[in-house]
Amino acid sequence: MGGLDLVITGGTVVTAADSYAADIGIKNGRIAQIGTGLAASERIDATGLLVLPGGIDAHVHLDQPTSDGTTMADDFASGTRSAAAGGNTTVLPFALQIKGQSLRACVEDYRRKAQGNCHTDVAFHLIVSDPTPQVLGQELPALVQDGFTSFKVFMTYDDLVLNDAQLLDVFEVARRERALVMVHAEGHDAIRHLTRRLESEGRTAPYYHAQAHAQIAEREATHRAISHAQLIDMPIVIVHVSGRDPMEQIQWARGRGLKVFAETCPQYITLTAEDLRGLNMDFDGAKYVCSPPPRDADSQAAIWQGLRDGTFDIFSSDHCPFRIDATGKDTPRARTSFKWVPNGIPGVETRLPILFSEGVSKGRISLQRFVALTSTNPARLYGLYPRKGSIAVGADADLTLWDPALSRPIRQIDLHHGCDYTPYEGMQITGWPVRTILRGRTIALDGQVCSEAGGQELSRATSEAFARD
Amino acid sequence: MGGLDLVITGGTVVTAADSYAADIGIKNGRIAQIGTGLAASERIDATGLLVLPGGIDAHVHLDQPTSDGTTMADDFASGTRSAAAGGNTTVLPFALQIKGQSLRACVEDYRRKAQGNCHTDVAFHLIVSDPTPQVLGQELPALVQDGFTSFKVFMTYDDLVLNDAQLLDVFEVARRERALVMVHAEGHDAIRHLTRRLESEGRTAPYYHAQAHAQIAEREATHRAISHAQLIDMPIVIVHVSGRDPMEQIQWARGRGLKVFAETCPQYITLTAEDLRGLNMDFDGAKYVCSPPPRDADSQAAIWQGLRDGTFDIFSSDHCPFRIDATGKDTPRARTSFKWVPNGIPGVETRLPILFSEGVSKGRISLQRFVALTSTNPARLYGLYPRKGSIAVGADADLTLWDPALSRPIRQIDLHHGCDYTPYEGMQITGWPVRTILRGRTIALDGQVCSEAGGQELSRATSEAFARD
Amino acid sequence: MGGLDLVITGGTVVTAADSYAADIGIKNGRIAQIGTGLAASERIDATGLLVLPGGIDAHVHLDQPTSDGTTMADDFASGTRSAAAGGNTTVLPFALQIKGQSLRACVEDYRRKAQGNCHTDVAFHLIVSDPTPQVLGQELPALVQDGFTSFKVFMTYDDLVLNDAQLLDVFEVARRERALVMVHAEGHDAIRHLTRRLESEGRTAPYYHAQAHAQIAEREATHRAISHAQLIDMPIVIVHVSGRDPMEQIQWARGRGLKVFAETCPQYITLTAEDLRGLNMDFDGAKYVCSPPPRDADSQAAIWQGLRDGTFDIFSSDHCPFRIDATGKDTPRARTSFKWVPNGIPGVETRLPILFSEGVSKGRISLQRFVALTSTNPARLYGLYPRKGSIAVGADADLTLWDPALSRPIRQIDLHHGCDYTPYEGMQITGWPVRTILRGRTIALDGQVCSEAGGQELSRATSEAFARD
Amino acid sequence: MGGLDLVITGGTVVTAADSYAADIGIKNGRIAQIGTGLAASERIDATGLLVLPGGIDAHVHLDQPTSDGTTMADDFASGTRSAAAGGNTTVLPFALQIKGQSLRACVEDYRRKAQGNCHTDVAFHLIVSDPTPQVLGQELPALVQDGFTSFKVFMTYDDLVLNDAQLLDVFEVARRERALVMVHAEGHDAIRHLTRRLESEGRTAPYYHAQAHAQIAEREATHRAISHAQLIDMPIVIVHVSGRDPMEQIQWARGRGLKVFAETCPQYITLTAEDLRGLNMDFDGAKYVCSPPPRDADSQAAIWQGLRDGTFDIFSSDHCPFRIDATGKDTPRARTSFKWVPNGIPGVETRLPILFSEGVSKGRISLQRFVALTSTNPARLYGLYPRKGSIAVGADADLTLWDPALSRPIRQIDLHHGCDYTPYEGMQITGWPVRTILRGRTIALDGQVCSEAGGQELSRATSEAFARD
Repeated sequence: MGGLDLVITGGTVVTAADSYAADIGIKNGRIAQIGTGLAASERIDATGLLVLPGGIDAHVHLDQPTSDGTTMADDFASGTRSAAAGGNTTVLPFALQIKGQSLRACVEDYRRKAQGNCHTDVAFHLIVSDPTPQVLGQELPALVQDGFTSFKVFMTYDDLVLNDAQLLDVFEVARRERALVMVHAEGHDAIRHLTRRLESEGRTAPYYHAQAHAQIAEREATHRAISHAQLIDMPIVIVHVSGRDPMEQIQWARGRGLKVFAETCPQYITLTAEDLRGLNMDFDGAKYVCSPPPRDADSQAAIWQGLRDGTFDIFSSDHCPFRIDATGKDTPRARTSFKWVPNGIPGVETRLPILFSEGVSKGRISLQRFVALTSTNPARLYGLYPRKGSIAVGADADLTLWDPALSRPIRQIDLHHGCDYTPYEGMQITGWPVRTILRGRTIALDGQVCSEAGGQELSRATSEAFARD
Repeated sequence: MGGLDLVITGGTVVTAADSYAADIGIKNGRIAQIGTGLAASERIDATGLLVLPGGIDAHVHLDQPTSDGTTMADDFASGTRSAAAGGNTTVLPFALQIKGQSLRACVEDYRRKAQGNCHTDVAFHLIVSDPTPQVLGQELPALVQDGFTSFKVFMTYDDLVLNDAQLLDVFEVARRERALVMVHAEGHDAIRHLTRRLESEGRTAPYYHAQAHAQIAEREATHRAISHAQLIDMPIVIVHVSGRDPMEQIQWARGRGLKVFAETCPQYITLTAEDLRGLNMDFDGAKYVCSPPPRDADSQAAIWQGLRDGTFDIFSSDHCPFRIDATGKDTPRARTSFKWVPNGIPGVETRLPILFSEGVSKGRISLQRFVALTSTNPARLYGLYPRKGSIAVGADADLTLWDPALSRPIRQIDLHHGCDYTPYEGMQITGWPVRTILRGRTIALDGQVCSEAGGQELSRATSEAFARD
Repeated sequence: MGGLDLVITGGTVVTAADSYAADIGIKNGRIAQIGTGLAASERIDATGLLVLPGGIDAHVHLDQPTSDGTTMADDFASGTRSAAAGGNTTVLPFALQIKGQSLRACVEDYRRKAQGNCHTDVAFHLIVSDPTPQVLGQELPALVQDGFTSFKVFMTYDDLVLNDAQLLDVFEVARRERALVMVHAEGHDAIRHLTRRLESEGRTAPYYHAQAHAQIAEREATHRAISHAQLIDMPIVIVHVSGRDPMEQIQWARGRGLKVFAETCPQYITLTAEDLRGLNMDFDGAKYVCSPPPRDADSQAAIWQGLRDGTFDIFSSDHCPFRIDATGKDTPRARTSFKWVPNGIPGVETRLPILFSEGVSKGRISLQRFVALTSTNPARLYGLYPRKGSIAVGADADLTLWDPALSRPIRQIDLHHGCDYTPYEGMQITGWPVRTILRGRTIALDGQVCSEAGGQELSRATSEAFARD
Repeated sequence: MGGLDLVITGGTVVTAADSYAADIGIKNGRIAQIGTGLAASERIDATGLLVLPGGIDAHVHLDQPTSDGTTMADDFASGTRSAAAGGNTTVLPFALQIKGQSLRACVEDYRRKAQGNCHTDVAFHLIVSDPTPQVLGQELPALVQDGFTSFKVFMTYDDLVLNDAQLLDVFEVARRERALVMVHAEGHDAIRHLTRRLESEGRTAPYYHAQAHAQIAEREATHRAISHAQLIDMPIVIVHVSGRDPMEQIQWARGRGLKVFAETCPQYITLTAEDLRGLNMDFDGAKYVCSPPPRDADSQAAIWQGLRDGTFDIFSSDHCPFRIDATGKDTPRARTSFKWVPNGIPGVETRLPILFSEGVSKGRISLQRFVALTSTNPARLYGLYPRKGSIAVGADADLTLWDPALSRPIRQIDLHHGCDYTPYEGMQITGWPVRTILRGRTIALDGQVCSEAGGQELSRATSEAFARD
């Protein structure tokens, strides 16, 4: 069968269905053999380790401009370096259309920013913020043809929000072109209303962000997005679901046979709104400001139940890093009101360890479910499968070697992102990635990332959400 | 106890709780005695008849301007004459604010139109279409003080629709002033989207109105209105609920303890979307164009279940009459697309007979529930109780004598409205009102309405929706 | 109209629908007039008081034999004296068939025990514990003919439990004869299983009664009873519903259009399982041992929601009194295991004050709902209406004058039952009955009960549950 | 790596997670290599075929005695021959305890019957019909130790039914020993009640079997089984779920976090109660008599939804074959009442083709879900994984080569079971197994089964249902 380039021996291979002892033989960056007694010139000993499909983080914000001139803490270099260190081999960042801009132009801009700088493979989702006839009629169809097969739309944020008419227009184009739509579901007007009320009461500390972004507003927007998708008869993904209420809407929709997929994130199983209090209601709470905000213990329990029972298809980071200093969150304006605090927290490097430790190590989910949530399902839903997302003959040799017994805390000092803090500082983790392999090449080893940025941009096929019925 | 002016003898008195044989003694337009063997100079023999609290139709459109210059078929004279003939003693029409107008000015305008022309008592709901700071800050609080204790808001119609921010603003004022808000819950953008799609496919007959106004859009708006009300913590009424889907939202909300009240109408238990087909998809279907449109047999069954089990508090007509001729529905523009067909059907005169015949006579609901839905609950929810809405000592002597055995069809020729058709032509009814008494005076007898227009305008108290918790 | 015997003047008349100021004129024990300025030889001044329909306690155990030879603390004299003092004019005790006995003979036995000893009117439900062919084929049909139009069946208790085949047989007879069936829904085998387990662990204190009678077992039996009734297509009442779980089953059934009625009791809104701890897990907890047991704060909240929204039709006491001494609960055997503690607590005298104070005075339910739950609905469901259950011309003059402002605690020393304690000792109550009038005669006044026992046994009509559909 | 015994080349390997082109190398009856360009002395060309894990039919009745002396149509030889022809490599029949018998003795009896006669591997579930202290205390624990790690209990059938106390006892032992319990959930008394009623009305044709076994009775028993399992805190499998109602209970239970697994069968997606009419209500309907019976189109749609969304974990045949002649269903007694018709239909050979054709070929479920439902999940839930249930290095080389394009009807004449009919006669199937391989040996090829009966009896590990939480 021709010589193998590399074999990984002695590990336990894990897929979304299985777990078994086998060697893996790699040739030309792809998996060529799975078996016993494989040999090659290069050999990695995985004895005692799990061999997982490389992590795919399907929700990552990198190098996005912000409307207020602050800077996102990660560009493509630092963001994908952090991803690689965290066990990921592919990340899906966003190409964000600025109102007034051509979407195509914006995509090219992001591709340029990424080119040559990525440590992992990357593929872009398109954020549609200005669905002009040109965008709807020409650009989106052409971009889907070019492999950008998923759009993201926002139901909140002043500079991104689409109204219902625009949402329906985007959904209609997506259905025709068979692109999957990701929805940030929070009710914009409700949030603004609550924000004004809180501000008028002098409640301006970061903590009140979590009150302004009420779970009711998330639930309402979730129901609205589901209804719009039902009218157009097309699949959607509700991203970063934070709590019991929006989950209930998703389950209700599925019970009626609707194609509604769901994503959740580390912050919703580890943090609560109480974290936004910081130290005595001070600005330290800004470290935890993201949207939707973390909720409470009851919602955490609901999210775990949903991770277990299949309500959630995808577990992403929603990595959206801002430094806690004046270049990021701590602007003079942000000190005047929570509404000016940039929304987002870092997490691309800690996503997999957190879910493994809290989920697998603590017996809440199986290894198979871990792989499905963090790699196989994202690959399937976003058109990267079968090239990515599993350990199978012919697939890219994207592998993460995982030491399930290694136990140490998350520390900012150990991380590779551009952010100056982690919301999970000190959290004890059992189970860490020890080696990340991208198309047969080791890109991270024991917390050290290789200097070469050999990641490629991937073109994507149609989502499997369109496969049946 | 002083001489009675009038006694009604031999009938069966029915309230929302009870049913018993008794005479009723009236003095100065009020009920003074309920008992046996009462005597007075004037006597009405109600042997074999039911004596019901006068009907209160809480949802009636009269003499409203339309944006396209067509004419509503009823002014206050004909509308209340029709109401009286149909067993009603009070109707609640709307004072509709036109965008740009002062709401106070508009109220005064409607009051002038009504003054001296009403055969029943009337009280106005306020339609808020332009919630300017002036309206929110000054006019609404003052109008609530003056007894206009309910607002109506629209989530659709180009000239009436409020966006979510405006809805929340109105809800907030309503909560502060303790006014009840009625919500027309249909998603505007969804309807416009579907309309454009249908038009682009050449589907422009009246029938397609029912497709454009999809039940999903009604359900979505119902959920949205409920969520907004929950955020503000205030009671609302979802008016003219048409089917199973929005009902499910209302029941879900109540199960969580939210104060959501609900109204339905005759069209939703008697008509279906098929009626909009007319004769072979022609313009005759326009006779049934109203919003939300009638649905299907499954929704009819759901509505009956809701009338029985208390999901619905109020059964109104949503009387909104347009002639089927060129002054009303049949304009050149309406022939080009269903979207130009004026929305609304007549029903103030047939509401009570339809619910009695289909509900009480057919054994679906009790007499008590009939009274609750058509008189007592509207009085309680809209601040007219205890003066109106029941048969009790001290209440206005508003009574309807009802012959439960009288059986004859609904015929346009017998009706008193200004409309030139009834959607219920030929429907066989068992149980008709035979005499309507307003504050002790007979205003309608055996289908003849007295010439005098002695109705008064009523000032209203705070809704009982604010009473507890 | 002929002279009245008695007038009650100046009060506020309250029914399940209305509330208004009026005098009430009584003649021959019935309500003859409701009006103003009434006069008679005898006059009761009700100024400042509410005039309510006399309370009907539809679930009361009196003078029942117990299988272990302990004595129930109330016979018909003391039980109805206590009821009268608590504002009731009618109670519905049980005629309990002992296995092997003729049901007819047992009914006659109870009637004899009651005869001449009752201070309120009474009517018997039949407890069917031995559904022999004779009982099913002859006795039950004849007894229904004689006005015993409701049966009660038990799904637990060694000496009363019916298996599923027997339940279905009784349901079938009940359907044919149009008798309403009350169901004590707790799963017998589950309770026995848990009991054995607890006993084997040495957990024998009264407190463990609440664990053995798990809410899951109540929910399961509720679902089972509902399913059996659905198979037979007949209405049932789930009595003494204790918590959120069985409530959910009832709501689910109603949502599907099934005729399932529900009752709850004072213990489920005021006590919790913690009360069974007594003082440091001692035998004092036995004072609160009843079945189903009180649950927790969450279930209390659910029950209140159900009282408000109509899930519950009836609020009864489930008065089942045993003294806490050796004649009742505190037997040598009961000291060895909770399973020998007689199940039941007293409450016929405190039912109305507790619901009024906790419900009406605290703003949780309306006066109308209070009347519906405690008098009108029991009368309707158990075939006593329109003679009982409301204030209407022609009805029995059963009235309770109520002082809504009177505030004092519940104290055993003030009560009239045969029990030596009350589970509600010290509970502060705002709103007390001050006079109870049975068919025009005062039977209790300011806590004093008249010596004469003038209560009658009532024959009952078919339940209104069979009225529609 | 040592020589392979056999390679399967050119096919598409499918697991519960993946699908990819690869060769499979087999050595010593196990999968040794998955890769490209594999070679061995023996080679099977699978070009154009799917290579699936061998089917595992987890619910098969073989050679069971019947209480009425009729004969089951399949012994282990014919039953497993039929299974092999239908693409299965493992079946799980039952060792049925007869009341009064030792369970251990009965197991040994079944093992003897199987020994040397099986064409597939087999493993026994234990049917507990007489949970004596000896069985509960000694035999079951010892049998679990010996690898019989699942029990089945019946809630109906005169000779098998356990009452609730017995169910709870068995559940408790199962929990302690970590055995999974399969529940046949139909309410025995309800079925008997309905049966008697139907018989008394002269409704005795096979058709009425479907009315006697009402879906309500299945739903009730499902709720009851779930409640008992919840009390004991242990996982159960509800087997052969037939319709929407019991499904709803399972989903409700899972929504609360309970470990309830579910199985459905081919008859519930292809047949309806109408099939039991036979030809004009004659005895031909007996061909479709099984329990629970097939329901209706609405339930079929619900079952499909459940197969898709994960409500169902397992798709089995519930193969329970009786000939339609006098040795099986058509006894003199069965002609007098449907209740004497042996319950059960054949299906072990048609299970996989039906689900593939109706599910995969018609686009209702994915290939991965097909494999999960028919092989991987049964292996995991019943303790056969990782030896069985997937295509992974180290696993038994149990493989089914599948031609997804082969289209021909099901015909009795082509089947290998001992039954003289198939309920699916004439059903067109697209997608058939063409070769079945057990531990590296071909046991069936193009509808021909090899003569040798080389199947082994398998000992099983603890179910994965006990793995987490």
